[in-house]
Amino acid sequence: MDPMGLPVNSRCSIARSLGVLGQKWALLILREALRGRTRFADFHRIGVPTEALSTRLGELVDAGLLERRPYRLDGERTRDEYVLTDAGRDVVLVMGALSAWSDAHQPLEGGPYVAYRRASDGVRVRVRFVDDAGVAVDPSEVVLSRPAERASE
Amino acid sequence: MDPMGLPVNSRCSIARSLGVLGQKWALLILREALRGRTRFADFHRIGVPTEALSTRLGELVDAGLLERRPYRLDGERTRDEYVLTDAGRDVVLVMGALSAWSDAHQPLEGGPYVAYRRASDGVRVRVRFVDDAGVAVDPSEVVLSRPAERASE
Repeated sequence: MDPMGLPVNSRCSIARSLGVLGQKWALLILREALRGRTRFADFHRIGVPTEALSTRLGELVDAGLLERRPYRLDGERTRDEYVLTDAGRDVVLVMGALSAWSDAHQPLEGGPYVAYRRASDGVRVRVRFVDDAGVAVDPSEVVLSRPAERASE
Repeated sequence: MDPMGLPVNSRCSIARSLGVLGQKWALLILREALRGRTRFADFHRIGVPTEALSTRLGELVDAGLLERRPYRLDGERTRDEYVLTDAGRDVVLVMGALSAWSDAHQPLEGGPYVAYRRASDGVRVRVRFVDDAGVAVDPSEVVLSRPAERASE
């Protein structure tokens, strides 16, 4: 708790998330996993150095974002593949927010390279702040505060 | 471009965002800025080591997320304070997504420590995927793909 009674790192959801997701390559590995990749060679192809990839996959497993599952191709040794957990799957929301920010403030010529779609019908979806009635709220209208239930702490 | 014609790092909005936002302390500094903090001592209080803080503030200025503005207190030397740009302000959406993920998958006893509210009326807002009609879409229903306008590349 800082002198103004505000949240500091260990208790802050942002800081806790970043402990897992903020590591170099972590989100890019999860992006590939979200696109259905599960194997070491698939992740290696995006340019993660071998040692960093081993370390990162282990951390993502320890953090509960990926699960190891053994598989074996004919004539080869048994290997692990890496399958998203529900928590790993939900990181798509963080990616959608990063993409939205990047598309607004570091736009690429020709438009974005990643699109987010509803699986059932392919409709594009976007990350937004919404109120309880589902009305979109512009980020410039949003402020951070302490929740009422924490006000007395 | 990887062998399957999919986006790799430099062109990917996620990777580009992380280049700026994925650095240790960057989002925590921006969180404090979003709560109205502007001065070196304010950021220092959250536990960022002095040298790391100087480096990170410089990078956030170079990335266009913060702007330096000189100020001088009576009897002291002129110092810079650090004020959010529009791009820095909009990082609140990424934070809201990180908080939503963390609250769902690493919940704290007693509920979250940070709340997001509409400034005009204090109503709580949350980060969601929404379709063009504003209907919320669960992250588990969202898939990543290439946008149609990039399909031929």
